[in-house]
Amino acid sequence: MPDLTAGQLAQITGTELRGDADCLIRGIAPLDQATAGQLAFLHRSEFRCDLADTQASVVILAPEDLPEYPGNALVTQNPLLAYAQAATALSATERPAACRHPTAVIDPSAQLAPDVIIGANAVIGARVVLAGQVVIGPNCTIGDDCVLGQASCLHPGVTLYPRVELGVECIIHAGAVLGSDGFGFANDQGRWVKIPQLGRLRLGDRVEVGANTTIDCGALNDTVLADGVKLDNQVHVAHNVQIGEHTAIAACVGIAGSARIGKYCTIAGASGLVGHIELADQVHVSSMTPVTHNLSQPGRYTSLLPAMPHAGWRKNFARIRQLDRMAHKLRRLEKQLAQVMSQLN
Amino acid sequence: MPDLTAGQLAQITGTELRGDADCLIRGIAPLDQATAGQLAFLHRSEFRCDLADTQASVVILAPEDLPEYPGNALVTQNPLLAYAQAATALSATERPAACRHPTAVIDPSAQLAPDVIIGANAVIGARVVLAGQVVIGPNCTIGDDCVLGQASCLHPGVTLYPRVELGVECIIHAGAVLGSDGFGFANDQGRWVKIPQLGRLRLGDRVEVGANTTIDCGALNDTVLADGVKLDNQVHVAHNVQIGEHTAIAACVGIAGSARIGKYCTIAGASGLVGHIELADQVHVSSMTPVTHNLSQPGRYTSLLPAMPHAGWRKNFARIRQLDRMAHKLRRLEKQLAQVMSQLN
Amino acid sequence: MPDLTAGQLAQITGTELRGDADCLIRGIAPLDQATAGQLAFLHRSEFRCDLADTQASVVILAPEDLPEYPGNALVTQNPLLAYAQAATALSATERPAACRHPTAVIDPSAQLAPDVIIGANAVIGARVVLAGQVVIGPNCTIGDDCVLGQASCLHPGVTLYPRVELGVECIIHAGAVLGSDGFGFANDQGRWVKIPQLGRLRLGDRVEVGANTTIDCGALNDTVLADGVKLDNQVHVAHNVQIGEHTAIAACVGIAGSARIGKYCTIAGASGLVGHIELADQVHVSSMTPVTHNLSQPGRYTSLLPAMPHAGWRKNFARIRQLDRMAHKLRRLEKQLAQVMSQLN
Repeated sequence: MPDLTAGQLAQITGTELRGDADCLIRGIAPLDQATAGQLAFLHRSEFRCDLADTQASVVILAPEDLPEYPGNALVTQNPLLAYAQAATALSATERPAACRHPTAVIDPSAQLAPDVIIGANAVIGARVVLAGQVVIGPNCTIGDDCVLGQASCLHPGVTLYPRVELGVECIIHAGAVLGSDGFGFANDQGRWVKIPQLGRLRLGDRVEVGANTTIDCGALNDTVLADGVKLDNQVHVAHNVQIGEHTAIAACVGIAGSARIGKYCTIAGASGLVGHIELADQVHVSSMTPVTHNLSQPGRYTSLLPAMPHAGWRKNFARIRQLDRMAHKLRRLEKQLAQVMSQLN
Repeated sequence: MPDLTAGQLAQITGTELRGDADCLIRGIAPLDQATAGQLAFLHRSEFRCDLADTQASVVILAPEDLPEYPGNALVTQNPLLAYAQAATALSATERPAACRHPTAVIDPSAQLAPDVIIGANAVIGARVVLAGQVVIGPNCTIGDDCVLGQASCLHPGVTLYPRVELGVECIIHAGAVLGSDGFGFANDQGRWVKIPQLGRLRLGDRVEVGANTTIDCGALNDTVLADGVKLDNQVHVAHNVQIGEHTAIAACVGIAGSARIGKYCTIAGASGLVGHIELADQVHVSSMTPVTHNLSQPGRYTSLLPAMPHAGWRKNFARIRQLDRMAHKLRRLEKQLAQVMSQLN
Repeated sequence: MPDLTAGQLAQITGTELRGDADCLIRGIAPLDQATAGQLAFLHRSEFRCDLADTQASVVILAPEDLPEYPGNALVTQNPLLAYAQAATALSATERPAACRHPTAVIDPSAQLAPDVIIGANAVIGARVVLAGQVVIGPNCTIGDDCVLGQASCLHPGVTLYPRVELGVECIIHAGAVLGSDGFGFANDQGRWVKIPQLGRLRLGDRVEVGANTTIDCGALNDTVLADGVKLDNQVHVAHNVQIGEHTAIAACVGIAGSARIGKYCTIAGASGLVGHIELADQVHVSSMTPVTHNLSQPGRYTSLLPAMPHAGWRKNFARIRQLDRMAHKLRRLEKQLAQVMSQLN
């Protein structure tokens, strides 16, 4: 980690410095664990109480928390963003020298920029194109005709099927599989006949894909993830799905075929989308929520059932099977009571 | 892709040709994007409107859609099946020459048919048997004593634990793990003691397994997937599960230990089966549905709760915890009202 | 498998032998399939009927089942535990000789005990420390600065990111990814800015991790799994999660960031925990249950909705959206009826 002064960090993060610009920062730690020479940040005012005792040399915080803290501060409306920028600067490591490990198997027809890094035992197929500064981790397999944009990085054990296309600065985590066959079959009197999956998978710029996530190629058209899309671990994206710019999808979400998701959406963990539906821009789906129909208005959507003690669950959930009967009883009671009341008056 | 005439395609698909048998087809495209020389298909009549403007040279369609279309047509009751067959023929590529990549590590005791293809950096264990035309992708690991039937194909990065058996023409997608230990432990005063998993995993013929799917070996008996079973990506199949012929299971489904699933079933995405239950033949489970008891009758089963706007969810779902109380109130009201009414009459 | 006598097995399992101590056991089988020379066990009294016809030479059973069985028996209050111990002894194989496969790529700065086993095409990073008897399967990638304790075992295709720490006797199944980046981003006017994930992942002793499971490193603090934790396949553990001793988590469970789970908990398959919540010791979560708030009391918690026939689901589940309205109607009816009744009396 490089050392940076508070003044340099203010410049990097575009924040306002209050205090000693020459204070030297050598690392980062949580507010309640930081020691002298370290940077900390206050993300939410609920942890404001930690400000009094922190030993951090500089704290990133919001203007409303500044009066509580007498020390060196970087002041900003978005402390988390400033923290991300400062932590990136403080954790930067020198880029390793360009290198193609001698055990890597690279097809002679592949076109590699001079400064790519290819890890041990990686396998690069025919006609693959790797732009400058691309990093391919150990034990990755890149299928024929894939194209990777500038500075994209594959962690170890990633598989790209043939013809996958990545934009610039994509990050693909270990074990992810990109461009696998969609789950497409015709039924012939009970037996399943495979439908060739002939579309491609295309990722825009700065897409991040989590560990062991799978994204299928298209059936005939392409599967497309737009610029800035972020997928967490163990997400499944089926064939012909389209995901709009800067949408973030948390772990364990499954998205069925041909679903179309708008821009600036967030889908929380373990939710699911059925196939052929459309989500508008800025739709936010809560965790463990099944989405079964179009959501054409921005906003938050939910349907999870929070855990309750088992005995209470037994008593109440059995009633769900009687709900329709209960509703009918209720209506009958209303009618009868209305009659009684009119009879009385 | 080979070029085929409309007449040849009619023969391959067993469909009835209406129009020019010599029309040459060079590719496939969706109905609304196809250009001259391409094949398209009309899967559902709801897209019938695209027929008028399509530039496709031949269209696969159902008899009821034929009157709407004046051009060359392949007519069949099952357009999707004909499309699968035509697309297979049109996308066929020549099989690469048999080859064992020099970086592959093959145990000398393994028995390989002369025409197998072994990718770079694949590792083949002791006493493994690979039948004719088997393809092992790069970076796969095949444990000792595995047996792979004729023309089975492993995509890159697949792991087979020892003693896994595959029938003919199986397709295993990248990152899948077959034959891993079942999750079996005895409890010794709070601590978990591992139960050795001694059974095998056996797959029948033409089984397809999706990317990053995991299938455990049996605890003592075997885990068995019958002929024609299709699993999508990120499915989990626990120890001792049995899945019947031609059952298809969509992505992200989890099946707990010793569950038995019949033939010709479909299980939609992200559903789950608890252990030790049995599903009859032709059971169809909707997406995101927990199956917690035997389903002994064919038919469709469901329990997902579709997403709703968050405010409505807060209001209504809180009531689920009061359902039992509501049911009791309802019964009391009915009784009281009956008394009132008898008093009045 | 070594042969053992009934007397030896009694000693190994700490059970009471009834019958012939010299009876030789050559294998294990289910009660209803065992043949002479084999060991079987009766786990639950509901299968007691199989005792009469079993051909097993020795049966492990509980005292209350002993009167039903005249043959050789190993008697114990915990037959499953005795079975685990006996099966471990009977299935023990000789440890292969220490070996570093010539195709493995081992950084010269790595410190390897003399008796480690490194599989073909494995890649071991800089400054990695492997204690005695460690096994690294084929095609694994171990990032820089990882530390693996005595006798820990990685199955094929496992990826460890840099700085992951494993205790002694851990078992990591194929395709698992340990120490990947947490899903952390700051939002800059709609765009996501990556937050460097600077914490580590630390596993205690005897932790088992299932196939294709993913565990993220910490954001700033560490992600920590304590001694004896067992994770099944395709579990996802996000950054900064802490899991207490001897907690077992079944397949397909997702645990969001900073969740803290106590000791001796069990979480059944496909459940989910939202972030920043805390579960007390001895909490048991049923399958497919979302946990959205702290569970501070031991006990079982549930909220799954079991599958029902589709028509019944349509009728009853639509009513859930009307629950709040139904509750209001019910209250109004109660008031009106009370008025009617006071009017009558």
